[in-house]
Amino acid sequence: MGLIVQKFGGSSVKDRDHLFRVARIIANTRLAGNNVVAVVSAQGDTTDTLLEKAAEITQEPSAREMDVLLSTGEQISIALLTMTLNALGCDAISLTGWQAGFHTNCAYTKARIQRLDCKRIAGELAQGRVVVVAGFQGMTQLEDITTLVRGGRDTSAVAIAAALQADRCQIFTDVEGIYTADPRRVPSARKLKEVSFDEMLELASMGSQVLNNRSVELAKKYHVELEVLSSLNPVEGTVVREQAKTMEGTCIKGMTKDTAVAVISILHLQDLAAARTRIFSLLAQNDVHVDMICQAADQGESNQLHFSIAAADKVKTMQLLQQCGVCDGGEILVDDSCAKVSVVGIGLQTNGGIAAKLFEALASHQINVKMVTTSEIKISVMIRKNDVDLAMRAIHDALVAE
Amino acid sequence: MGLIVQKFGGSSVKDRDHLFRVARIIANTRLAGNNVVAVVSAQGDTTDTLLEKAAEITQEPSAREMDVLLSTGEQISIALLTMTLNALGCDAISLTGWQAGFHTNCAYTKARIQRLDCKRIAGELAQGRVVVVAGFQGMTQLEDITTLVRGGRDTSAVAIAAALQADRCQIFTDVEGIYTADPRRVPSARKLKEVSFDEMLELASMGSQVLNNRSVELAKKYHVELEVLSSLNPVEGTVVREQAKTMEGTCIKGMTKDTAVAVISILHLQDLAAARTRIFSLLAQNDVHVDMICQAADQGESNQLHFSIAAADKVKTMQLLQQCGVCDGGEILVDDSCAKVSVVGIGLQTNGGIAAKLFEALASHQINVKMVTTSEIKISVMIRKNDVDLAMRAIHDALVAE
Repeated sequence: MGLIVQKFGGSSVKDRDHLFRVARIIANTRLAGNNVVAVVSAQGDTTDTLLEKAAEITQEPSAREMDVLLSTGEQISIALLTMTLNALGCDAISLTGWQAGFHTNCAYTKARIQRLDCKRIAGELAQGRVVVVAGFQGMTQLEDITTLVRGGRDTSAVAIAAALQADRCQIFTDVEGIYTADPRRVPSARKLKEVSFDEMLELASMGSQVLNNRSVELAKKYHVELEVLSSLNPVEGTVVREQAKTMEGTCIKGMTKDTAVAVISILHLQDLAAARTRIFSLLAQNDVHVDMICQAADQGESNQLHFSIAAADKVKTMQLLQQCGVCDGGEILVDDSCAKVSVVGIGLQTNGGIAAKLFEALASHQINVKMVTTSEIKISVMIRKNDVDLAMRAIHDALVAE
Repeated sequence: MGLIVQKFGGSSVKDRDHLFRVARIIANTRLAGNNVVAVVSAQGDTTDTLLEKAAEITQEPSAREMDVLLSTGEQISIALLTMTLNALGCDAISLTGWQAGFHTNCAYTKARIQRLDCKRIAGELAQGRVVVVAGFQGMTQLEDITTLVRGGRDTSAVAIAAALQADRCQIFTDVEGIYTADPRRVPSARKLKEVSFDEMLELASMGSQVLNNRSVELAKKYHVELEVLSSLNPVEGTVVREQAKTMEGTCIKGMTKDTAVAVISILHLQDLAAARTRIFSLLAQNDVHVDMICQAADQGESNQLHFSIAAADKVKTMQLLQQCGVCDGGEILVDDSCAKVSVVGIGLQTNGGIAAKLFEALASHQINVKMVTTSEIKISVMIRKNDVDLAMRAIHDALVAE
């Protein structure tokens, strides 16, 4: 008998019919001989309705009271899902975040789990019950209710799976798994059977909506095997684990794009090394995150610096650079007509053929590459925004769908 | 500096405007130099909406899960009211039933308070905060959420007032206080300044909707001074206390009526004493509550028994009487064209003039009295249903409005 943790998002439990669909998935997992802990979010637009009620009263609600308010959303879900499981003849019990043993710090609306005491969950499982836990919430040392930091959407489920050493943590979403590219943009995109934690982290940090980084980091840290699958069509999904067990036909696991970027170019710098240090520490102090960095040589010694930032930081960055004086005598250019396209896969860097194929694919479609960076498992290229869709299809056809 | 506990019902906090009205009442009480604990119910029809969600899933929801579900209603209210108080510049904090220290037994959906640990409430008051507590809920020894027995609508507030030895427990409703009669039926009805616990208990058990018996009993037991007043028009209400401080012009404190009654008459009984014992134990075993009892003598020895029951129990009672055989040879009659009118006030029985005036008032309007019972503080008469409004006005004019 195994132990499976199953996480269901708000759209999966939004009404009676969806609740019954989810309850059948859980009941079937139980009938197959597994213990099950189900972690659920607030129903559909419950959270928005609660946010509206607060907004009617004040634009600056107390963070503590927001957590008292918003945590009711998940509490409603766990009660209804447990009733639904009972209606299907499945013994079940609901637990709020604090009942389930989630101890967090005091950072209301963005709390972090400090300790998870699974005594109650384990006790209920031992009674043969499915345990339905309210995701996204916990309790401080002073017994105040908290909700977890937004990025931590699935962390409750992963934390339970880690604490109970579950055999698998299944994340049910509205997609059937992790795809090599966005199927709406790249017709030849296909679902991956497996992907490693590191690859998933690269994909997630580049804006993939399926899993978020904190959950994947937690799963990697505690060796929790994740599976991403659909609650609407529960066929086999994508497994995320330390090392992919089966080698697939290609080492490329996915592609992403980011169009909200700006490239800053500083030309004719007198002392590049000094300026570079000064510029990057100045930007870091002001919370500007620098992504790609590229130094190009005009002739002989390099005196140009190019780097990319989030488009939202463009104005702030220009002000900082103009005021600090380190670029005096040089020239500062900003280009926000760019977009970044990345491919992710283990062994990309060591497999020289991949980079070559990528550039060949872009060249054959007359796509100019403005910047390039590579890491152990990722190659990113900065291209013109207008070329993004064409580039994604070209790269996918050349590298992924082979 | 005093300590005031203020209880607000669901209609008082149903939307933004009502929340601000209630928050202003609380803030003004605080500004007047008092510490305040506010106890609130779920907003307007929140509870009904949650009940509907459960009913969509199952007709037999687990009582434990119903409490998990329904307790969210009050939790939403406390968060919103606390935000509203903050918006008015009033320092406040919300506490759920379990945070406030309400420990109950395990009777889900009808739990009873076993212990109230006011440490947290007292600590927050000491910080100068208004404490907003979710009414109607608590926690079992196993840390499960419970809701209190329905009759205990105001018991949370009274329990806090008792535990903290508050100077007063104000119950805000949609009426301005306790009236000598229903103002919609008796034009001369007037609001009482004060009423004793015992009088209030008689008024409440006769169907007055303003306060319920468990709350009044608790207040009496722990010497908590209650005040019933309106959240819409917060003028002085009616104070309920052990002994009315000021003597009012009349000892009559109120009138009520009950039209859902039936009178059973058993005539020509062979052995009245034996039959009476048998009949009343039979009815008690079958949960039929007998209210007024009257034995009348035909000539010489009494062989008639008359008693009143709730109209809803009429058919069940007739079946029980016919089947048991004790009335064999006698005659059983049922009359559901009756109604009971009662007047309540301390010293009614010892003040012979009251009963006389009451019968005089009824006689002067040609109203027949079918049965009479008296207690220390109550006189009830059974009359024809058609005469009820006339009788109420006649009695009120003669006894109350003098």
